[in-house]
Amino acid sequence: MEKVKVGLWGFGAMGRGMAKMLLEKKGLELVAVCDLDPNKVGKSIFEILGIERKDKREVIIEPDYTKAFTEKCADVVLLATDSFVKNAFNKIEYLLKNKLNIISTAEEMAYPQSQSPELAERIDKLAKENGVSILGTGINPGFVLDLLVLALTGTCESVDSIKAVRVNDLSPFGKAVMEEQGVGLTKEKFEEGVKKGTIAGHVGFPESIKMITDGIGWKLDKIEQTREPIMSNVYRKAEYAEVVSGNVAGCRQCGYGYVGNEVKITMEHPQQILPNLENITTGDYITIKGTPNIELTITPEIPGGIGTIAMCVNSIPHVINAKPGLRTMLDIPVPRAIMGDIRDMIEK
Amino acid sequence: MEKVKVGLWGFGAMGRGMAKMLLEKKGLELVAVCDLDPNKVGKSIFEILGIERKDKREVIIEPDYTKAFTEKCADVVLLATDSFVKNAFNKIEYLLKNKLNIISTAEEMAYPQSQSPELAERIDKLAKENGVSILGTGINPGFVLDLLVLALTGTCESVDSIKAVRVNDLSPFGKAVMEEQGVGLTKEKFEEGVKKGTIAGHVGFPESIKMITDGIGWKLDKIEQTREPIMSNVYRKAEYAEVVSGNVAGCRQCGYGYVGNEVKITMEHPQQILPNLENITTGDYITIKGTPNIELTITPEIPGGIGTIAMCVNSIPHVINAKPGLRTMLDIPVPRAIMGDIRDMIEK
Repeated sequence: MEKVKVGLWGFGAMGRGMAKMLLEKKGLELVAVCDLDPNKVGKSIFEILGIERKDKREVIIEPDYTKAFTEKCADVVLLATDSFVKNAFNKIEYLLKNKLNIISTAEEMAYPQSQSPELAERIDKLAKENGVSILGTGINPGFVLDLLVLALTGTCESVDSIKAVRVNDLSPFGKAVMEEQGVGLTKEKFEEGVKKGTIAGHVGFPESIKMITDGIGWKLDKIEQTREPIMSNVYRKAEYAEVVSGNVAGCRQCGYGYVGNEVKITMEHPQQILPNLENITTGDYITIKGTPNIELTITPEIPGGIGTIAMCVNSIPHVINAKPGLRTMLDIPVPRAIMGDIRDMIEK
Repeated sequence: MEKVKVGLWGFGAMGRGMAKMLLEKKGLELVAVCDLDPNKVGKSIFEILGIERKDKREVIIEPDYTKAFTEKCADVVLLATDSFVKNAFNKIEYLLKNKLNIISTAEEMAYPQSQSPELAERIDKLAKENGVSILGTGINPGFVLDLLVLALTGTCESVDSIKAVRVNDLSPFGKAVMEEQGVGLTKEKFEEGVKKGTIAGHVGFPESIKMITDGIGWKLDKIEQTREPIMSNVYRKAEYAEVVSGNVAGCRQCGYGYVGNEVKITMEHPQQILPNLENITTGDYITIKGTPNIELTITPEIPGGIGTIAMCVNSIPHVINAKPGLRTMLDIPVPRAIMGDIRDMIEK
């Protein structure tokens, strides 16, 4: 069997991480990389990644996607360019029309049925017409606050309510993330930012909540979200941000899924720098009330960057095996690490 | 769409639990129950379960499986009679030849490829010839020490080693379980029982270990298992067992999966009565060493009885939707609670 051919659209932090991971795996080869960044275009990916090429195929960063990705040029393309369905749509349409399976890192693509049902239908139709499949995934949405929750409910005779909390430390991240989460601002500036939409917070609650309700068969009536400042009682300093006591250390985002008038799903995702300075332990926490009750803890939290990279790459065989159409974590087998030859995981 | 028809073979603790759960669900009906127990034969399941029939279909316990299960009489039969593949095989063969999908509680059926590869192949062939599918599942094997581990590895770029531990309390169980685990014996009697095979311990490590190695692509070279007495330092008393200090409170079973000469997977399942009397917290614990490291804790452990019942019932739509053949947790979507109409989860 020939090697599994993988294309990569987007060579930012996620794209580069996926490229590194792909280059470590047996039975596949990276065949094309597309990115617009003038500092990368025309260069070898091995030069940019700072790793030796050895016997791997040379790949030069191509700015023109019509040259990077031609019909059936790969078994799957990893699309790591956007967060929102509407921004990713034209790229998705192009790839599907060229009969290329897709795995997207766009948070909203983890369950586009939630906020973009019409686009989701168009994507599903396009994929089926072209005999390929498309999946959106990542650590969150894609795993911690949805697939892992769903998996736990599989051990339940019935479920009354679900609470899922992800507490992380933003300190390793760069300037853009600090600004998106309002780190270092005064309370007033933070609240202004939320109103204006410059404090983006986490993208993914509507996707995770709807994936769960559709997955277990609850009729979702309403989603509410809030963004509040996490006020610091101490001085905190990370590489790209500084917080004086009394200012904002990050953004506490909450999401609520209503069935009728009842909140059935609660999600909390406080993102801040150095929570340990106020004795807060980072981690992923899931509480299911039902028969039985379940309390799950993962401490520290599964890291976001590696987790997203891994979920996308580890989904490759399942997307290649999948029936044509828009797929979600509800209908593919659970992705797992790929420690052998990836071709052994592809169905004939 | 007609209701999903479910048959049930075996009306012991698991079978009765599944019947109760099935009767609570929308869009399905229990159509046949088979059991040999003279105290149950000829009686209504509602009488035995002690619940009102209301508008449900009457089901009388039938001792003759050829009468209980005729060709295509149900969309799926839950088979809750055995622990071992070779004991369940004739029943499986009969059901498959009658074009009935099967979900089996037999621990070895969770991954029959591990210890009965030839029977697994025959089962796969029979299922395909008859256009139906068969799955073995339960809480363990089936979830805690395999599917949940595999799901976590999906967030990993690579995995070096895996340790999974399930610490539970046997006190709610009956006399048979106490005897199988050697509760109350002296150390000498326990060791004699292990040699003779009367101390059965947990059935499932070879299945869980092989499911993980096949799932992530490690080449499994050897499985080792040990059974040791858990010596009590205190007096312990449960309904069906009594342990004096210095005697055996239960059985600590360990399993090791080797890749080459290296132990890559370690499993521990100490089963005893009242571990809390020696300050032992029950729970499910998974440690993955890799990129990244992951530490998961579920305390208390997901209960075994409810968990097995739920995993089997919640797998119904996925087994009906599956491609014909022997299926495992590696190739169906993750089972989840069924809180709506089960027919909404069946693909047309």
